[in-house]
Amino acid sequence: MQYDFETIIDRRHTNSAKWNVKPGELPMWIADMDFQTAPEIITALKKRAAFGIFGYEEIPTSYYEAVADWWATEHHFRPQLDWLMFCTGVVPAISSIVRKMTAPGDNVLVQAPVYNMFYHSIENNGRHTLSSDLVENDGQYTIDFTDLEQKLAEPLTTMMILCNPQNPIGIVWSRADLQHIGELALKHHVLILADEIHCDLTLNGQDYTPFSSLSAPVAANSISCISPSKTFNVAALHAATLIMPDQAIRERVSRAINNDELAEPNSFAIPGSIAAYREGHAWVAELRTKIADNQRQLQTFVAKNLPAVKVIEAQATYLIWLDISAVAADASELATFIRSETGLFLSAGDVYRGDGKYFLRINIACPTAELTDGLKRLQAGIEAYMVQD
Amino acid sequence: MQYDFETIIDRRHTNSAKWNVKPGELPMWIADMDFQTAPEIITALKKRAAFGIFGYEEIPTSYYEAVADWWATEHHFRPQLDWLMFCTGVVPAISSIVRKMTAPGDNVLVQAPVYNMFYHSIENNGRHTLSSDLVENDGQYTIDFTDLEQKLAEPLTTMMILCNPQNPIGIVWSRADLQHIGELALKHHVLILADEIHCDLTLNGQDYTPFSSLSAPVAANSISCISPSKTFNVAALHAATLIMPDQAIRERVSRAINNDELAEPNSFAIPGSIAAYREGHAWVAELRTKIADNQRQLQTFVAKNLPAVKVIEAQATYLIWLDISAVAADASELATFIRSETGLFLSAGDVYRGDGKYFLRINIACPTAELTDGLKRLQAGIEAYMVQD
Ligand SMILES: Cc1ncc(COP(=O)(O)O)c(C=O)c1O
Ligand SMILES: Cc1ncc(COP(=O)(O)O)c(C=O)c1O
Repeated sequence: MQYDFETIIDRRHTNSAKWNVKPGELPMWIADMDFQTAPEIITALKKRAAFGIFGYEEIPTSYYEAVADWWATEHHFRPQLDWLMFCTGVVPAISSIVRKMTAPGDNVLVQAPVYNMFYHSIENNGRHTLSSDLVENDGQYTIDFTDLEQKLAEPLTTMMILCNPQNPIGIVWSRADLQHIGELALKHHVLILADEIHCDLTLNGQDYTPFSSLSAPVAANSISCISPSKTFNVAALHAATLIMPDQAIRERVSRAINNDELAEPNSFAIPGSIAAYREGHAWVAELRTKIADNQRQLQTFVAKNLPAVKVIEAQATYLIWLDISAVAADASELATFIRSETGLFLSAGDVYRGDGKYFLRINIACPTAELTDGLKRLQAGIEAYMVQD
Repeated sequence: MQYDFETIIDRRHTNSAKWNVKPGELPMWIADMDFQTAPEIITALKKRAAFGIFGYEEIPTSYYEAVADWWATEHHFRPQLDWLMFCTGVVPAISSIVRKMTAPGDNVLVQAPVYNMFYHSIENNGRHTLSSDLVENDGQYTIDFTDLEQKLAEPLTTMMILCNPQNPIGIVWSRADLQHIGELALKHHVLILADEIHCDLTLNGQDYTPFSSLSAPVAANSISCISPSKTFNVAALHAATLIMPDQAIRERVSRAINNDELAEPNSFAIPGSIAAYREGHAWVAELRTKIADNQRQLQTFVAKNLPAVKVIEAQATYLIWLDISAVAADASELATFIRSETGLFLSAGDVYRGDGKYFLRINIACPTAELTDGLKRLQAGIEAYMVQD
């Protein structure tokens, strides 16, 4: 490898939310990585710092070109430049769009278990969450399209938030599934909000289907959210892009994110994103290999040492969904036990709802030594839990 | 001087909103400065860039300590640490607070002419602006307290946005005036939102009175907004702080800015602000001297060369309010004429409402050579306008 994914960098006392833990604890929960970002991005950020003037900014066309070119190269689909709109983050965009494009009391459809912030964006804004839960069968999750259509057809359902690739399970939805969802949504007048923040981190040679690349009428009824944040470990760069093929939607959303003060970039967001999308291809290719390696290490370790735990195979993301139903009836209790017993801090699946209470989510975006440490703690924690049971 | 306020730095093609102008034009409108920020801040930002991991962040206590210490040293008043809350900007905070602390259809009181974004924050959120216009007398603006009280007493008036120091006029309100406003607001159940973003840029040895330093009941009925953004020319650092002495207000506002996704700092906001507040004292002292020098240069020039224009003496800010009522009946028409004739881009006063249509606002935060150029263009533009009249 040309890039370094093995050096352990001390993130304690760096204001990191992930690493705000007790001495000796090992956090493998919140979704950021323990790797430095691509050196090309660091160079661009240092250069921006050195310029020394940090006044009000506008979004240059070169930003949108960099985004479109990345999608063309990495995902074989070039969004039109005028479909694209900068925003300070994916969750900020989702919250703002929920407020603008639905009414209080409406249903927003999701597919649990799914990224927990969706529930906050929906419910803190006075809308209701309606879930068409994903159905698990032998480690494979699928969509119950009959149930989905019934829920899309409810008159108060006005938006669906789709997660592709899916957090926490790591599913990459097929083009056929996406087109099917899109057609049902169109039929029942439900706007699709597709969160594609994990789309660059597909594993083992797969690619994902941009929602905006589906049939024209389906794409026109959608807003997709993309960002360098997960891909390049730059969550606090505060840069994201909305893809909106439909002009009327664009104009309403532009009012929403401007009115909610989420439309202006900080001084580093644009140069950092351009460096990522222009110069980050090789780094991401290696990162994907590293994540796939880590996933294999985890699978091998668990198969050998923790037969009671079932690893759901992730097709994307550095988050792995662990079925602990044979170990505990309550993931939250198990997570608390593992943390207090071994210092390993995982996400309990409950917050993702659906069948989440039988699952733990582990973040494997870290150097091998750290992952090895985490897996030993996982084993020790689960063994201790089973004995004490 | 130890610091450099004279080098002209080319800001064209740097995504600058201010410098997005035609070749040869000279922008002296939007409120950012053509100086580099303090070298101590640049060093901190470079160091943050070099660290290379940009994950999710929390606000450390050291940030709030740096803010409180700055206020203690610079403004002789130390806010309690638990009164302080980080936010991504002053206008974002104002918009979010208007949405949370008032109802659609309410009146929000302002004192025109005043910073135009107040009107956007009020009206784009479906509230009404009610102005108790400032009264000018021979270049001095004062408050008509009878009018102010009548408007505070209207049942639908639920918030007042106060600007201290005041943009665009540069007034620093006296402690007596502020206490008077605060008591009237309390009497009529109107919440005070005090925008103090310009408070570090007082001129000629003056200081300002933090609203939160007024009598305890008046302070408890207020939210103040402060930021290193104007002081250090770091608008796109996206860092601001709210001062809220009252716990119930803090808890409601915390929900507002979290729900509106304005509560999380980007990777550079915290280290940049800490460097500013810990190491920026000497730089700001020199900056204030430079701005006062520029103000004197402008006053001398206008008195000598443009007797038809009256300069309002600013007690703070790098924005100067020019009375052009003897030149034109419409500032906006005059500004357009000056720009097309000479390339000098000023703010027409109309957007600030009140008596703004008889005024131009000029931003003098620039090297001497640039100011000299701007003043020559101003003279040429106004002379040409008067001849053509
Ligand atoms: C599906 C998904 N969307 C959005 C986010 C966060 O996006 P942002 O940090 O841009 O708000 C995450 C972070 O984990 C995520 O998993
Ligand atoms: C009075 C006042 N408040 C707020 C702002 C802008 O604050 P921010 O950039 O933090 O939103 C300005 C900028 O000119 C201003 O003059």
